[in-house]
Amino acid sequence: MSPHPIEFRTAPELYRHWSIDIDAPVAILSMDVDETASLVPGYELKLNSYDLGVDIELYDAIQRLRFEHPEVRTVVIASGNDKVFCSGANIRMLGLSAHGHKVNFCKFTNETRNAIEDASEFSGQRYLCAINGTAAGGGYELAAAADYLVLVDDGNAAVSLPEVPLLAVLPGTGGLTRLVDKRKVRRDLADVFCTLEEGIRGQRAVDWRLVDETVARTAFDTRIHERALQMAESSDRPVDSSGVSLTPIKRDMTDDSISYPYVKARLDRTGRVATIVLEGPADNPPSDITGIEDAGVDFWPLALARSLDDLLLHLRFNETELGTLVFKTEGDTDAVIAYDQLLRDNQDHWLVREILLYWKRTLKRVDYTSRSTFAMIEPGSCFAGLLAEILFSVDRSYMLEGQFEDDERLPAAIQLTDSNFGLLPMGNGLTRLETRFLGEPDTLANAKSLISTPLDAAGALEAGLVTFAPDDIDWEDEIRLLLEERASFSPDSLTGMEANLRFAGPETMETRIFGRLTAWQNWIFQRPNAVGESGALKSYGTGKRPAYDRKRV
Amino acid sequence: MSPHPIEFRTAPELYRHWSIDIDAPVAILSMDVDETASLVPGYELKLNSYDLGVDIELYDAIQRLRFEHPEVRTVVIASGNDKVFCSGANIRMLGLSAHGHKVNFCKFTNETRNAIEDASEFSGQRYLCAINGTAAGGGYELAAAADYLVLVDDGNAAVSLPEVPLLAVLPGTGGLTRLVDKRKVRRDLADVFCTLEEGIRGQRAVDWRLVDETVARTAFDTRIHERALQMAESSDRPVDSSGVSLTPIKRDMTDDSISYPYVKARLDRTGRVATIVLEGPADNPPSDITGIEDAGVDFWPLALARSLDDLLLHLRFNETELGTLVFKTEGDTDAVIAYDQLLRDNQDHWLVREILLYWKRTLKRVDYTSRSTFAMIEPGSCFAGLLAEILFSVDRSYMLEGQFEDDERLPAAIQLTDSNFGLLPMGNGLTRLETRFLGEPDTLANAKSLISTPLDAAGALEAGLVTFAPDDIDWEDEIRLLLEERASFSPDSLTGMEANLRFAGPETMETRIFGRLTAWQNWIFQRPNAVGESGALKSYGTGKRPAYDRKRV
Repeated sequence: MSPHPIEFRTAPELYRHWSIDIDAPVAILSMDVDETASLVPGYELKLNSYDLGVDIELYDAIQRLRFEHPEVRTVVIASGNDKVFCSGANIRMLGLSAHGHKVNFCKFTNETRNAIEDASEFSGQRYLCAINGTAAGGGYELAAAADYLVLVDDGNAAVSLPEVPLLAVLPGTGGLTRLVDKRKVRRDLADVFCTLEEGIRGQRAVDWRLVDETVARTAFDTRIHERALQMAESSDRPVDSSGVSLTPIKRDMTDDSISYPYVKARLDRTGRVATIVLEGPADNPPSDITGIEDAGVDFWPLALARSLDDLLLHLRFNETELGTLVFKTEGDTDAVIAYDQLLRDNQDHWLVREILLYWKRTLKRVDYTSRSTFAMIEPGSCFAGLLAEILFSVDRSYMLEGQFEDDERLPAAIQLTDSNFGLLPMGNGLTRLETRFLGEPDTLANAKSLISTPLDAAGALEAGLVTFAPDDIDWEDEIRLLLEERASFSPDSLTGMEANLRFAGPETMETRIFGRLTAWQNWIFQRPNAVGESGALKSYGTGKRPAYDRKRV
Repeated sequence: MSPHPIEFRTAPELYRHWSIDIDAPVAILSMDVDETASLVPGYELKLNSYDLGVDIELYDAIQRLRFEHPEVRTVVIASGNDKVFCSGANIRMLGLSAHGHKVNFCKFTNETRNAIEDASEFSGQRYLCAINGTAAGGGYELAAAADYLVLVDDGNAAVSLPEVPLLAVLPGTGGLTRLVDKRKVRRDLADVFCTLEEGIRGQRAVDWRLVDETVARTAFDTRIHERALQMAESSDRPVDSSGVSLTPIKRDMTDDSISYPYVKARLDRTGRVATIVLEGPADNPPSDITGIEDAGVDFWPLALARSLDDLLLHLRFNETELGTLVFKTEGDTDAVIAYDQLLRDNQDHWLVREILLYWKRTLKRVDYTSRSTFAMIEPGSCFAGLLAEILFSVDRSYMLEGQFEDDERLPAAIQLTDSNFGLLPMGNGLTRLETRFLGEPDTLANAKSLISTPLDAAGALEAGLVTFAPDDIDWEDEIRLLLEERASFSPDSLTGMEANLRFAGPETMETRIFGRLTAWQNWIFQRPNAVGESGALKSYGTGKRPAYDRKRV
């Protein structure tokens, strides 16, 4: 683990950079970056620029608005700085950061922007961006995650993506993709926009589809408020429910273990493997929605998602050498299925909807994790419904055929439910089973017919639901060889291979961002023209002009 | 220019590595690599491994089969080596090559595999792959470009993609994408396959969808012949037409100019710009298909496509510092439109179909070119129909409003025809105008209503068909600033930006290969784990084990 692990758990009373101001149905989420409060020493967060620490607060705020504030129907992203909306990722921070941190930073900011879009599309919480001053680079990319962008028209405030001309890198948080795919900006105009340091302001920004509206400064606040109320009208969020308070996630760590409610991890640094055990519920589910509301943050599916989410982020940033994640489950399959059924029965309730959407995002975080992922299905496991979805997210799964010697527990069984057939789509818009069986519609139909049937290793293998099913005699050797072999490969080639094998089928804005844009950015983040001693990221602000190798690749 | 420019023009009598053997309706395209005939010194092409020189011959052979042999309906890709089908790209060559060459090499091999798939899908020339021995890495990727893969079952011959375990890079020619997207191999099985050095053979290769059939060695040749004839049955290629002989392309080069029939290029090395002038036809079109056949290789649309194709490849490999391509046209718009009309009127004839498909592929080569591309529309130009398509491929277009001072020529006009609305789709499956106007269906409909109307600068700008329309007073300064500014940016960030802005809308296997897979491969080709002194590409064959940085990014 790194000596100063990055902490993802926070709460509004700890925020240094954001504030939440609620006047239902509208919340103002305001960015006023404390320039002295950088995540690590070495740079100042001037002009509302951000680093990972700023974005961790944003992610927390978005989660809280969803869970704690059912009454909020429109979120206004605003700036606490008079002149600058946001000037994007801090350049000095980028210049100082290691390659891996830059890449992970971009992935996290992308996932957070996607969570904004997810709230808007699925949970009735629309986002309005009040661009009160310059929105540059990541500042414009943050704005572009909102549904509706209002730019102040004061002859000065502009939106811009100056990364290419200024820094020799790409806008790292989905900007290019959102331009041409989400906002459908004409590609030649997008080309002009992305090479114009000073950006575009006023009516031209509207004409080019870069923002939705431009408003004089004197009318700005009124118009934002009016538009926010208007956007709130179409929401189906409840008016008289109370939210679930997201109390601090409990976590115990030792050098080789991490323990959360319902999630335990063992870290094998020599073998470079993290084994993650997801635990089934401790008791039977509540009988109705009131019971779910009463359980709140301790409701098993919510507690487990929060634990897993934090663990994935922790491993991603703080345990970069643990290249393989092995998922296991432990618990009572019937109890898992009872919870799974309860969620589906109440999926239209705002809170259950949020919990399912959180599962959806967390499973996607597994999909997008640049580690090799395996699942091991052993006696005592409870891969059913929601938890079975893990089996179809990982790169491979191994199921023990029969029992272990000297182990009384019955052979493992997995069980599909309706939850595996539409509730939790991947980033490509398909279910994981649809993606898995892209070439075999009959196998998909057969899987559907197996809902509620406990499947032993032979049955699961036959149905194409697991990769291999060794028996007790082979199990230990096979798993050991698998993990040793995986640890012996180049991490980079595994990351590239997995990114290309995991997402067959249709593409969406999201798969494009994580598949195409990320890869190009990773490449550029390695190139001397950006990160070399004379590259643009190092030269920026020094008065020296960057020196480029002019060869086109 | 590099001191030893790579030559793309070849012909069967010059081939060192391939032979074509025709017994209509079947052609055997056989690979028997001359290990001493590498493109550059420093490595031997053992075990039917290939370098760019081998692939240049393959590309030429595919073109000739399409144009010179209308009677060929099935092409069998075979090996002249008894034990090895093909062992992929030569590893020593990869280890010795500069980053840019590796990337360009992969792009060209990808385009050539796509041309195979294009022939199969659109011109009635199906491809069958006779895998008579080991097909490793690029060898299996070549096979996967075919429609139908037959693997010999001799207890030994296997298909494999050993790049990740052996070389710490990705299969560079679309292998991963073709596995999960084209052949729809289940992703966990694909994961196993891609990490298995020795690959998979026999029935398991069929069960996993890696090949379509496996046949004992004794029955192999008979089965291949039988299946080739079977595949020929569904073809609509003519039985009694004669082909068009692809005589050598004429080219004259000086240090700062290149001249072809209908295509001229001026190279400005100081400004790092190549200006490409496409010339309209020298005379009126023939009146019917017989006239087209008689004109053969001199038929304007075919001659121009061949010239442009060769120029694009030459610039890509031999002029890597010319980062900007400026396209212009010169000629008589009416004559262009007459040819354009003739092609559409005869688009079902096999030869015209081939010419249009060749235009489609050549325009896609412009789309995929990792240079900034602009079009300049000036008096005397003839951007109409087929040639107007260039305007929608480039990153930006500039049209002179009015006339130049002291120039009698009339103001430029552009003209759309039906050819711009479906005949020449991009890799994403949409027309360039559909992609351009993704967010504005009304503008697309309006463009369609403008077919046959000559549009001056104001009209073209109003219709969204050009980016800017400066007048004579501004033109020179604006163009100069544009070219200087572009030349001042980091080539890498431009490549990444353009790759992300050019292909909005749906994705296809092709856009995935050039967008996603290529970018990941570019990244990996930069990483010390692959190309560093202790990286796998450098260590391969030395007996030393590669040393990897274990951090996952």
